[in-house]
Amino acid sequence: MREPQRAVYDHTEIYKILDEGFVCHAGFTVDSQTYVIPTMYARVGDALYFHGSAVSRMLRNLSNGVSVCITVTLIDGLVLARSVFNHSMNYRSVVALGMATLVSEPTEKLNALHAFTEKILPGRWNDARQPNEKELKATSILKLSLSEVSAKVRVGPVEDDAEDYALRVWAGIVPLRLVADAPIRDERCDVSIPGPAYATNFRR
Amino acid sequence: MREPQRAVYDHTEIYKILDEGFVCHAGFTVDSQTYVIPTMYARVGDALYFHGSAVSRMLRNLSNGVSVCITVTLIDGLVLARSVFNHSMNYRSVVALGMATLVSEPTEKLNALHAFTEKILPGRWNDARQPNEKELKATSILKLSLSEVSAKVRVGPVEDDAEDYALRVWAGIVPLRLVADAPIRDERCDVSIPGPAYATNFRR
Repeated sequence: MREPQRAVYDHTEIYKILDEGFVCHAGFTVDSQTYVIPTMYARVGDALYFHGSAVSRMLRNLSNGVSVCITVTLIDGLVLARSVFNHSMNYRSVVALGMATLVSEPTEKLNALHAFTEKILPGRWNDARQPNEKELKATSILKLSLSEVSAKVRVGPVEDDAEDYALRVWAGIVPLRLVADAPIRDERCDVSIPGPAYATNFRR
Repeated sequence: MREPQRAVYDHTEIYKILDEGFVCHAGFTVDSQTYVIPTMYARVGDALYFHGSAVSRMLRNLSNGVSVCITVTLIDGLVLARSVFNHSMNYRSVVALGMATLVSEPTEKLNALHAFTEKILPGRWNDARQPNEKELKATSILKLSLSEVSAKVRVGPVEDDAEDYALRVWAGIVPLRLVADAPIRDERCDVSIPGPAYATNFRR
Protein backbone atom coordinates (compact mmCIF):
# COMPACT_ATOMS: atom_id res chain seq x y z
CA MET A 1 0.00 0.00 0.00
CA ARG A 2 1.08 3.50 -0.81
CA GLU A 3 1.42 5.90 2.09
CA PRO A 4 1.04 9.46 0.76
CA GLN A 5 1.36 10.65 4.35
CA ARG A 6 4.79 11.57 5.57
CA ALA A 7 6.41 11.94 8.95
CA VAL A 8 8.04 15.27 9.78
CA TYR A 9 10.82 15.73 12.32
CA ASP A 10 12.02 19.19 11.29
CA HIS A 11 11.30 21.59 14.15
CA THR A 12 10.70 24.60 11.88
CA GLU A 13 7.91 22.76 10.09
CA ILE A 14 6.51 21.31 13.33
CA TYR A 15 6.49 24.72 15.05
CA LYS A 16 4.64 26.25 12.09
CA ILE A 17 1.82 23.73 12.58
CA LEU A 18 1.77 24.35 16.34
CA ASP A 19 1.61 28.10 15.79
CA GLU A 20 -1.33 27.87 13.40
CA GLY A 21 -3.50 25.76 15.72
CA PHE A 22 -4.84 26.95 19.07
CA VAL A 23 -6.75 23.95 20.44
CA CYS A 24 -4.83 20.81 21.32
CA HIS A 25 -6.00 17.45 22.59
CA ALA A 26 -4.23 16.53 25.83
CA GLY A 27 -4.04 12.84 26.65
CA PHE A 28 -3.13 11.45 30.07
CA THR A 29 -3.88 8.41 32.17
CA VAL A 30 -5.47 8.24 35.62
CA ASP A 31 -5.90 4.86 37.35
CA SER A 32 -5.22 3.10 34.03
CA GLN A 33 -7.97 5.04 32.23
CA THR A 34 -6.82 7.27 29.36
CA TYR A 35 -8.50 10.65 28.98
CA VAL A 36 -8.30 13.03 26.02
CA ILE A 37 -9.39 16.60 26.67
CA PRO A 38 -9.43 19.62 24.35
CA THR A 39 -7.68 22.68 25.69
CA MET A 40 -6.00 25.86 24.49
CA TYR A 41 -2.27 26.10 24.08
CA ALA A 42 0.58 28.24 22.80
CA ARG A 43 4.17 27.54 21.90
CA VAL A 44 6.84 29.72 23.48
CA GLY A 45 10.31 28.83 22.23
CA ASP A 46 10.86 25.10 22.69
CA ALA A 47 7.99 24.70 25.13
CA LEU A 48 4.27 24.24 24.79
CA TYR A 49 2.01 25.76 27.45
CA PHE A 50 -1.56 24.53 27.84
CA HIS A 51 -4.53 25.31 30.07
CA GLY A 52 -4.49 22.77 32.85
CA SER A 53 -7.82 23.29 34.62
CA ALA A 54 -9.45 20.20 33.10
CA VAL A 55 -6.37 18.10 33.81
CA SER A 56 -6.09 19.48 37.35
CA ARG A 57 -9.66 18.47 38.16
CA MET A 58 -8.84 14.85 37.35
CA LEU A 59 -5.38 14.53 38.88
CA ARG A 60 -4.87 14.81 42.60
CA ASN A 61 -1.20 15.60 42.50
CA LEU A 62 0.45 17.54 39.70
CA SER A 63 3.53 18.53 41.66
CA ASN A 64 5.65 15.72 40.21
CA GLY A 65 4.47 16.46 36.69
CA VAL A 66 2.15 14.39 34.55
CA SER A 67 2.94 12.20 31.59
CA VAL A 68 1.04 13.58 28.60
CA CYS A 69 0.58 13.32 24.88
CA ILE A 70 -0.39 16.61 23.27
CA THR A 71 -1.82 16.37 19.78
CA VAL A 72 -2.63 19.26 17.46
CA THR A 73 -4.50 18.55 14.23
CA LEU A 74 -5.20 20.94 11.37
CA ILE A 75 -7.68 19.76 8.73
CA ASP A 76 -6.83 20.95 5.22
CA GLY A 77 -9.12 19.02 2.91
CA LEU A 78 -11.01 15.94 1.85
CA VAL A 79 -9.32 13.70 -0.70
CA LEU A 80 -11.89 12.17 -3.05
CA ALA A 81 -10.26 9.31 -4.88
CA ARG A 82 -11.94 7.18 -7.53
CA SER A 83 -12.09 4.27 -5.11
CA VAL A 84 -13.54 4.46 -1.60
CA PHE A 85 -10.40 2.72 -0.32
CA ASN A 86 -8.15 5.57 -1.45
CA HIS A 87 -10.29 8.32 0.06
CA SER A 88 -8.28 10.28 2.58
CA MET A 89 -7.78 13.66 4.20
CA ASN A 90 -5.19 16.33 3.82
CA TYR A 91 -4.09 17.32 7.30
CA ARG A 92 -1.16 18.36 9.45
CA SER A 93 -0.86 16.82 12.89
CA VAL A 94 1.73 17.19 15.65
CA VAL A 95 2.25 14.76 18.52
CA ALA A 96 4.34 15.84 21.53
CA LEU A 97 5.19 13.48 24.36
CA GLY A 98 6.70 14.07 27.77
CA MET A 99 6.22 15.09 31.37
CA ALA A 100 4.18 18.26 31.72
CA THR A 101 4.83 20.35 34.79
CA LEU A 102 2.67 22.88 36.57
CA VAL A 103 3.84 26.46 36.05
CA SER A 104 4.06 28.17 39.41
CA GLU A 105 6.26 31.19 38.71
CA PRO A 106 3.85 34.16 38.19
CA THR A 107 5.88 35.82 35.40
CA GLU A 108 6.09 32.58 33.42
CA LYS A 109 2.34 32.09 33.92
CA LEU A 110 1.66 35.62 32.72
CA ASN A 111 3.88 35.06 29.68
CA ALA A 112 1.98 31.89 28.84
CA LEU A 113 -1.39 33.65 29.09
CA HIS A 114 0.02 36.45 26.95
CA ALA A 115 1.03 33.88 24.34
CA PHE A 116 -2.42 32.19 24.40
CA THR A 117 -4.12 35.51 23.73
CA GLU A 118 -1.70 37.05 21.28
CA LYS A 119 -1.30 33.99 19.06
CA ILE A 120 -5.01 34.10 18.23
CA LEU A 121 -5.82 37.79 18.65
CA PRO A 122 -2.71 39.98 18.22
CA GLY A 123 -3.25 43.17 20.19
CA ARG A 124 -5.97 41.82 22.48
CA TRP A 125 -3.68 41.58 25.52
CA ASN A 126 -3.23 45.34 25.70
CA ASP A 127 -6.90 46.09 24.95
CA ALA A 128 -8.36 43.82 27.64
CA ARG A 129 -8.00 44.03 31.40
CA GLN A 130 -4.95 41.98 32.24
CA PRO A 131 -4.98 39.28 34.92
CA ASN A 132 -4.66 40.33 38.53
CA GLU A 133 -2.85 38.34 41.19
CA LYS A 134 -5.97 36.46 42.30
CA GLU A 135 -6.86 35.46 38.73
CA LEU A 136 -3.31 34.41 38.03
CA LYS A 137 -3.42 32.14 41.07
CA ALA A 138 -6.73 30.65 39.93
CA THR A 139 -5.30 29.81 36.51
CA SER A 140 -3.64 26.47 36.08
CA ILE A 141 -1.05 26.29 33.30
CA LEU A 142 1.01 23.27 32.34
CA LYS A 143 4.29 23.31 30.44
CA LEU A 144 5.66 20.60 28.18
CA SER A 145 9.17 20.78 26.73
CA LEU A 146 9.10 20.03 23.01
CA SER A 147 11.87 17.45 23.02
CA GLU A 148 9.93 14.39 21.84
CA VAL A 149 7.85 15.84 19.04
CA SER A 150 6.96 14.79 15.52
CA ALA A 151 4.38 15.58 12.88
CA LYS A 152 2.43 13.68 10.31
CA VAL A 153 1.30 15.43 7.19
CA ARG A 154 -0.71 14.56 4.11
CA VAL A 155 -0.67 17.11 1.30
CA GLY A 156 -1.26 17.06 -2.40
CA PRO A 157 -3.50 15.36 -4.89
CA VAL A 158 -5.53 12.17 -5.04
CA GLU A 159 -3.60 8.90 -5.30
CA ASP A 160 -5.55 6.15 -7.05
CA ASP A 161 -4.69 2.63 -8.09
CA ALA A 162 -3.39 2.62 -11.67
CA GLU A 163 -6.41 0.74 -13.08
CA ASP A 164 -8.90 3.09 -11.38
CA TYR A 165 -7.87 6.21 -13.32
CA ALA A 166 -9.98 4.97 -16.24
CA LEU A 167 -13.17 5.07 -14.14
CA ARG A 168 -15.60 7.89 -14.89
CA VAL A 169 -15.70 9.03 -11.27
CA TRP A 170 -15.13 12.64 -10.25
CA ALA A 171 -11.89 12.87 -8.28
CA GLY A 172 -10.22 15.76 -6.55
CA ILE A 173 -9.70 17.73 -3.36
CA VAL A 174 -12.29 19.63 -1.32
CA PRO A 175 -10.17 22.21 0.56
CA LEU A 176 -11.31 22.88 4.12
CA ARG A 177 -10.42 25.71 6.46
CA LEU A 178 -11.58 27.40 9.63
CA VAL A 179 -13.12 30.84 9.02
CA ALA A 180 -14.58 33.55 11.20
CA ASP A 181 -17.95 35.17 10.62
CA ALA A 182 -18.65 38.80 11.51
CA PRO A 183 -18.07 39.39 15.23
CA ILE A 184 -21.16 39.63 17.46
CA ARG A 185 -20.89 42.59 19.80
CA ASP A 186 -21.84 41.83 23.41
CA GLU A 187 -25.25 43.31 24.32
CA ARG A 188 -23.63 45.34 27.06
CA CYS A 189 -20.75 46.62 24.90
CA ASP A 190 -21.23 50.30 24.03
CA VAL A 191 -21.64 50.75 20.25
CA SER A 192 -19.19 53.65 20.31
CA ILE A 193 -16.36 51.17 21.05
CA PRO A 194 -15.04 50.17 17.61
CA GLY A 195 -14.67 46.50 16.70
CA PRO A 196 -10.94 45.73 16.80
CA ALA A 197 -9.17 44.47 13.65
CA TYR A 198 -8.26 41.13 15.30
CA ALA A 199 -12.00 40.44 15.67
CA THR A 200 -13.29 41.86 12.39
CA ASN A 201 -10.48 40.42 10.24
CA PHE A 202 -9.78 37.19 12.12
CA ARG A 203 -7.77 34.76 10.01
CA ARG A 204 -5.83 31.55 10.57
CA MET B 1 -15.64 31.19 39.67
CA ARG B 2 -18.46 30.98 37.18
CA GLU B 3 -18.53 27.99 34.87
CA PRO B 4 -20.51 28.94 31.73
CA GLN B 5 -19.68 25.50 30.38
CA ARG B 6 -22.15 22.74 30.99
CA ALA B 7 -21.97 18.97 30.97
CA VAL B 8 -24.36 17.12 28.69
CA TYR B 9 -25.52 13.54 29.25
CA ASP B 10 -28.50 13.49 26.89
CA HIS B 11 -27.75 11.05 24.08
CA THR B 12 -29.72 12.98 21.44
CA GLU B 13 -27.58 16.06 22.02
CA ILE B 14 -24.36 14.02 22.24
CA TYR B 15 -25.12 12.12 19.01
CA LYS B 16 -25.81 15.39 17.20
CA ILE B 17 -22.27 16.56 18.05
CA LEU B 18 -20.78 13.22 17.00
CA ASP B 19 -22.66 13.35 13.69
CA GLU B 20 -21.42 16.85 12.86
CA GLY B 21 -17.75 16.05 13.41
CA PHE B 22 -15.73 13.61 11.32
CA VAL B 23 -12.27 13.63 12.90
CA CYS B 24 -11.86 12.31 16.44
CA HIS B 25 -8.82 12.11 18.69
CA ALA B 26 -8.27 8.56 19.89
CA GLY B 27 -6.32 8.16 23.14
CA PHE B 28 -4.81 4.89 24.31
CA THR B 29 -1.86 3.73 26.38
CA VAL B 30 1.01 1.44 25.34
CA ASP B 31 3.70 0.50 27.89
CA SER B 32 2.47 3.30 30.19
CA GLN B 33 2.83 5.95 27.44
CA THR B 34 -0.38 7.68 26.38
CA TYR B 35 -0.85 8.42 22.68
CA VAL B 36 -3.46 10.66 21.07
CA ILE B 37 -3.99 10.20 17.35
CA PRO B 38 -6.44 11.91 14.98
CA THR B 39 -8.56 9.58 12.91
CA MET B 40 -11.87 9.50 11.04
CA TYR B 41 -14.99 8.09 12.62
CA ALA B 42 -18.72 7.67 12.21
CA ARG B 43 -21.53 6.86 14.59
CA VAL B 44 -23.85 4.00 13.69
CA GLY B 45 -26.64 3.58 16.23
CA ASP B 46 -25.12 3.36 19.70
CA ALA B 47 -21.63 2.59 18.42
CA LEU B 48 -18.76 4.64 17.16
CA TYR B 49 -16.52 3.19 14.43
CA PHE B 50 -13.07 4.63 13.82
CA HIS B 51 -10.16 3.96 11.48
CA GLY B 52 -7.75 1.76 13.38
CA SER B 53 -4.66 1.68 11.17
CA ALA B 54 -2.69 4.13 13.32
CA VAL B 55 -3.72 2.32 16.51
CA SER B 56 -2.94 -1.07 14.96
CA ARG B 57 0.58 -0.01 14.10
CA MET B 58 1.26 0.73 17.76
CA LEU B 59 -0.47 -2.18 19.43
CA ARG B 60 0.72 -5.72 18.94
CA ASN B 61 -2.48 -7.42 19.91
CA LEU B 62 -5.90 -5.94 19.35
CA SER B 63 -7.79 -9.21 19.67
CA ASN B 64 -8.78 -8.59 23.29
CA GLY B 65 -9.85 -5.04 22.55
CA VAL B 66 -8.12 -1.85 23.57
CA SER B 67 -9.06 0.65 26.25
CA VAL B 68 -9.62 4.00 24.55
CA CYS B 69 -10.86 7.52 25.04
CA ILE B 70 -12.38 9.00 21.91
CA THR B 71 -12.78 12.78 21.92
CA VAL B 72 -14.58 14.87 19.30
CA THR B 73 -14.32 18.65 19.49
CA LEU B 74 -16.22 21.22 17.43
CA ILE B 75 -15.00 24.81 17.68
CA ASP B 76 -17.82 27.38 17.47
CA GLY B 77 -16.23 30.67 18.42
CA LEU B 78 -13.86 32.84 20.38
CA VAL B 79 -15.28 34.55 23.47
CA LEU B 80 -13.68 37.97 23.93
CA ALA B 81 -14.45 39.14 27.44
CA ARG B 82 -13.40 42.49 28.88
CA SER B 83 -10.82 40.75 31.06
CA VAL B 84 -8.21 38.32 29.78
CA PHE B 85 -9.20 35.94 32.57
CA ASN B 86 -12.76 35.55 31.24
CA HIS B 87 -11.71 34.92 27.65
CA SER B 88 -12.97 31.57 26.52
CA MET B 89 -14.17 29.53 23.56
CA ASN B 90 -17.57 28.35 22.47
CA TYR B 91 -17.25 24.68 21.65
CA ARG B 92 -18.95 21.31 21.81
CA SER B 93 -16.89 18.33 22.86
CA VAL B 94 -17.76 14.66 23.36
CA VAL B 95 -15.71 12.17 25.37
CA ALA B 96 -16.43 8.44 24.98
CA LEU B 97 -14.67 5.82 27.10
CA GLY B 98 -14.52 2.05 26.84
CA MET B 99 -12.98 -1.00 25.24
CA ALA B 100 -12.74 -0.73 21.47
CA THR B 101 -12.80 -3.98 19.54
CA LEU B 102 -11.53 -4.82 16.09
CA VAL B 103 -14.30 -5.30 13.54
CA SER B 104 -13.74 -8.57 11.71
CA GLU B 105 -17.14 -9.29 10.15
CA PRO B 106 -16.92 -8.05 6.51
CA THR B 107 -20.50 -6.72 6.33
CA GLU B 108 -20.06 -4.72 9.54
CA LYS B 109 -16.77 -3.37 8.19
CA LEU B 110 -18.42 -2.39 4.92
CA ASN B 111 -21.25 -0.67 6.82
CA ALA B 112 -18.71 1.29 8.85
CA LEU B 113 -16.85 2.43 5.72
CA HIS B 114 -20.20 3.35 4.17
CA ALA B 115 -20.98 5.46 7.25
CA PHE B 116 -17.54 7.19 7.15
CA THR B 117 -18.09 8.21 3.53
CA GLU B 118 -21.80 9.05 3.60
CA LYS B 119 -21.67 11.16 6.76
CA ILE B 120 -19.30 13.61 5.06
CA LEU B 121 -20.20 13.19 1.39
CA PRO B 122 -23.76 11.89 0.95
CA GLY B 123 -23.93 10.04 -2.36
CA ARG B 124 -20.21 9.43 -2.71
CA TRP B 125 -20.43 5.74 -1.83
CA ASN B 126 -22.44 4.96 -4.96
CA ASP B 127 -20.34 7.23 -7.19
CA ALA B 128 -16.95 5.78 -6.24
CA ARG B 129 -15.62 2.29 -6.72
CA GLN B 130 -16.58 0.38 -3.63
CA PRO B 131 -14.07 -1.67 -1.62
CA ASN B 132 -13.16 -5.11 -2.87
CA GLU B 133 -12.38 -8.06 -0.63
CA LYS B 134 -8.64 -7.39 -0.55
CA GLU B 135 -9.14 -3.71 0.38
CA LEU B 136 -11.68 -4.64 3.03
CA LYS B 137 -9.14 -7.01 4.56
CA ALA B 138 -6.47 -4.31 4.51
CA THR B 139 -8.72 -1.85 6.34
CA SER B 140 -8.63 -1.89 10.10
CA ILE B 141 -11.79 -0.60 11.80
CA LEU B 142 -12.38 -0.37 15.52
CA LYS B 143 -15.76 -0.23 17.24
CA LEU B 144 -16.58 1.45 20.55
CA SER B 145 -19.98 1.07 22.20
CA LEU B 146 -21.28 4.45 23.30
CA SER B 147 -22.18 3.45 26.83
CA GLU B 148 -19.83 5.72 28.79
CA VAL B 149 -20.22 8.98 26.92
CA SER B 150 -20.68 12.62 27.89
CA ALA B 151 -20.31 16.04 26.35
CA LYS B 152 -19.13 19.42 27.47
CA VAL B 153 -20.52 22.50 25.81
CA ARG B 154 -20.01 26.25 26.04
CA VAL B 155 -22.50 28.39 24.18
CA GLY B 156 -23.72 31.93 24.42
CA PRO B 157 -22.38 35.34 25.21
CA VAL B 158 -19.43 36.77 27.10
CA GLU B 159 -19.51 36.47 30.89
CA ASP B 160 -17.58 39.21 32.65
CA ASP B 161 -17.05 40.13 36.28
CA ALA B 162 -19.70 42.66 37.36
CA GLU B 163 -17.19 45.51 37.79
CA ASP B 164 -15.60 44.91 34.37
CA TYR B 165 -18.72 45.80 32.36
CA ALA B 166 -17.89 49.47 32.85
CA LEU B 167 -14.54 49.11 31.02
CA ARG B 168 -14.35 50.58 27.53
CA VAL B 169 -13.13 47.32 26.02
CA TRP B 170 -14.78 45.76 22.96
CA ALA B 171 -16.42 42.49 24.00
CA GLY B 172 -18.24 39.86 22.00
CA ILE B 173 -18.06 36.61 20.10
CA VAL B 174 -16.04 35.80 16.97
CA PRO B 175 -17.98 32.89 15.43
CA LEU B 176 -15.80 30.20 13.86
CA ARG B 177 -16.71 27.40 11.47
CA LEU B 178 -15.16 24.96 9.05
CA VAL B 179 -15.87 25.81 5.41
CA ALA B 180 -15.01 24.28 2.06
CA ASP B 181 -13.49 26.17 -0.82
CA ALA B 182 -14.22 25.31 -4.46
CA PRO B 183 -13.21 21.70 -5.19
CA ILE B 184 -9.97 21.14 -7.10
CA ARG B 185 -10.46 18.61 -9.88
CA ASP B 186 -7.74 15.98 -10.12
CA GLU B 187 -5.43 16.56 -13.10
CA ARG B 188 -6.35 13.19 -14.50
CA CYS B 189 -10.11 13.62 -14.02
CA ASP B 190 -11.86 14.19 -17.37
CA VAL B 191 -13.50 17.65 -17.45
CA SER B 192 -16.67 16.12 -18.88
CA ILE B 193 -17.32 14.46 -15.50
CA PRO B 194 -19.42 17.01 -13.59
CA GLY B 195 -18.41 18.03 -10.08
CA PRO B 196 -20.85 16.31 -7.70
CA ALA B 197 -23.04 18.39 -5.36
CA TYR B 198 -21.44 16.91 -2.22
CA ALA B 199 -18.11 18.39 -3.37
CA THR B 200 -19.30 21.71 -4.81
CA ASN B 201 -21.73 22.45 -1.95
CA PHE B 202 -19.91 20.84 0.96
CA ARG B 203 -21.30 22.03 4.29
CA ARG B 204 -21.06 20.94 7.89
